[in-house]
Amino acid sequence: MNYERKYNFSAGPAMMPEAVLEEVAAELLNYRGSGMSVMEMSHRSRVYQTILEETEADLRALLAIPNNYRVLFLQGGGTLQFSMVPMNLMAHGAAEYLLTGAWSQKAMEEAKKFGTVYVPASSQERGYWEIPALENLSLHPESDYVYICENETIHGTCYPSVPDTMGKPLVSDQSSLFLSKPCSVSDYGLIFAGVQKNVGPAGLAIVIIREDLIRGDLPQATPVYLEYATHAGASSLYNTPNCWAIYVCGKVFRYLRSTGGLDAMARRNEEKARVLYDFLDRSSFYSCPVKPPFRSLMNVPFFTPNPELDAQLVAFSQKAGLENLKGHRSVGGLRASLFNAMPLEGVKALVACLEEFAQNCGES
Amino acid sequence: MNYERKYNFSAGPAMMPEAVLEEVAAELLNYRGSGMSVMEMSHRSRVYQTILEETEADLRALLAIPNNYRVLFLQGGGTLQFSMVPMNLMAHGAAEYLLTGAWSQKAMEEAKKFGTVYVPASSQERGYWEIPALENLSLHPESDYVYICENETIHGTCYPSVPDTMGKPLVSDQSSLFLSKPCSVSDYGLIFAGVQKNVGPAGLAIVIIREDLIRGDLPQATPVYLEYATHAGASSLYNTPNCWAIYVCGKVFRYLRSTGGLDAMARRNEEKARVLYDFLDRSSFYSCPVKPPFRSLMNVPFFTPNPELDAQLVAFSQKAGLENLKGHRSVGGLRASLFNAMPLEGVKALVACLEEFAQNCGES
Repeated sequence: MNYERKYNFSAGPAMMPEAVLEEVAAELLNYRGSGMSVMEMSHRSRVYQTILEETEADLRALLAIPNNYRVLFLQGGGTLQFSMVPMNLMAHGAAEYLLTGAWSQKAMEEAKKFGTVYVPASSQERGYWEIPALENLSLHPESDYVYICENETIHGTCYPSVPDTMGKPLVSDQSSLFLSKPCSVSDYGLIFAGVQKNVGPAGLAIVIIREDLIRGDLPQATPVYLEYATHAGASSLYNTPNCWAIYVCGKVFRYLRSTGGLDAMARRNEEKARVLYDFLDRSSFYSCPVKPPFRSLMNVPFFTPNPELDAQLVAFSQKAGLENLKGHRSVGGLRASLFNAMPLEGVKALVACLEEFAQNCGES
Repeated sequence: MNYERKYNFSAGPAMMPEAVLEEVAAELLNYRGSGMSVMEMSHRSRVYQTILEETEADLRALLAIPNNYRVLFLQGGGTLQFSMVPMNLMAHGAAEYLLTGAWSQKAMEEAKKFGTVYVPASSQERGYWEIPALENLSLHPESDYVYICENETIHGTCYPSVPDTMGKPLVSDQSSLFLSKPCSVSDYGLIFAGVQKNVGPAGLAIVIIREDLIRGDLPQATPVYLEYATHAGASSLYNTPNCWAIYVCGKVFRYLRSTGGLDAMARRNEEKARVLYDFLDRSSFYSCPVKPPFRSLMNVPFFTPNPELDAQLVAFSQKAGLENLKGHRSVGGLRASLFNAMPLEGVKALVACLEEFAQNCGES
């Protein structure tokens, strides 16, 4: 690895492909003969318009997004989507939220401000270490949509399949699995993702929304930025977007396309996760609290026998050039996030480090 | 100028200091031995925390921000501030909006969603080409604040002085003059600015707010991202901010400090504007619609004798490496934005180009 770059296991912002960063650095002062940095470009200039259009086209190609879905490039992260989803989609004032962790809970708390929230399934009583059974969900007729957080970053769980919503639009927070594998967009009414995990720099949320869900009749006191119609009507240029993040994400989209697309990415992610989970499952020193069917390929929480050793291991791993392995404060232990740009070599380096640490502790 | 960089007269995003861009490029793959790009850093990591803290400290030093003011780094641009200001500050449901152009009008339309808006002064009937008289404004007792857009980017006007608000908090959209000159922060209740004009890459709005205006008792149905208290309580890390833009802006803040601070910047900006306005005023071919007392140092609209020549001049200037001189579509003509990073040489090159074009048209 050049430049003495480290393996960064952060849950986001996270690693990006080195080839993309090198391209970005090379173009930084003068983008393709334009005489300026992308950071300096008018968002309404021809040169930037081309960047925006190509970025959307490459994302559409990667995910095979159907024509009746719009792609929006918004600011405010997943947090603003927690508000925008209910404000825009609760036409009848109710929705179903499946509770599987801290992020679906945050989204649900926000939705309660704007209407009635039902919880047809929850793994809260199981400590959020699994995905609840999704068969025969009891949904209310007046509910406008069904909401899931498809991969919970903190507890490291992922839906093995999406629930049957009985025709209601499925809304999914895909922040921590976006573009990690193919996705059948037409199964969803709305997908959103903060890009700072699998794609690019923080400050950009991508929303993929079925056109018929973009309403023009929201309550009068809806902030203009919070209406999907505002952004859909202006092709994400109602106001100045996060031009830089869009540009960098576009490069990542092209990089993904040039390296086999999402099928190839899914195979690489499966292999990376397999290497780590297999090691953890074989170990008597480490434990992973998530059962195999619900395990995230992206975020892997694990524990040593006690919190003191957890803390020692974090320090030990840092000396080996492995960064940000400390678990989320609400869960403790360790967490390795293996987003798209984490190479297999990084996971192997992690396993080697974990082996060495266990041996140092008397495990063989 | 290296790299064949062009003079970019865009109204924003706009030019940035070349020295800053060079530093950013050099650190792009490995920020100061951290082994990662700033784009890849966890916003809660120690290395990024230091960036955030230093950025705020440098901004506070530049503007001499008093201790009872908070600095917030937010997403959503000026547009989201158009909503957040009334949602957070209209404790009694009313405010005064001074109308001086398209941007104060947009802000006012948004405020009307959340309360009663009074207009104590307006230059709308004068085509927005001037700032109205500010003496003896008739303000309503129940109004919570007085709002101005201190520099109107489209019509190129600027307040010669801020109005007497009779003790009410003054709220100012400083997007297109932020850090172009010293500012007495304590004269304001709240200042906000999109950074993409005078500072850095788009996707970041900086809010400077007097602490007593941060309310904890907003209506229940206020989106969590839209409460200033959310961000003030979490030091701008309630959710993942636009880490990259904060980092780049921090570099610009340090660059400004190292080049004499805002006093020196103001002198450079005055000189740049003087060169262009003097030329326009001496010319019988060009005209500037704004009277001297109200002229912006940042945005200079001007006209040739007719729209056909305006269009020809835009094309002519592009061949000379001068970009984005076309006037705003609502006004026509041309507009030269002379933000902080536009060098005096760029303005001289513009004047030379304007002279040549006029001569080509038979003016001598």
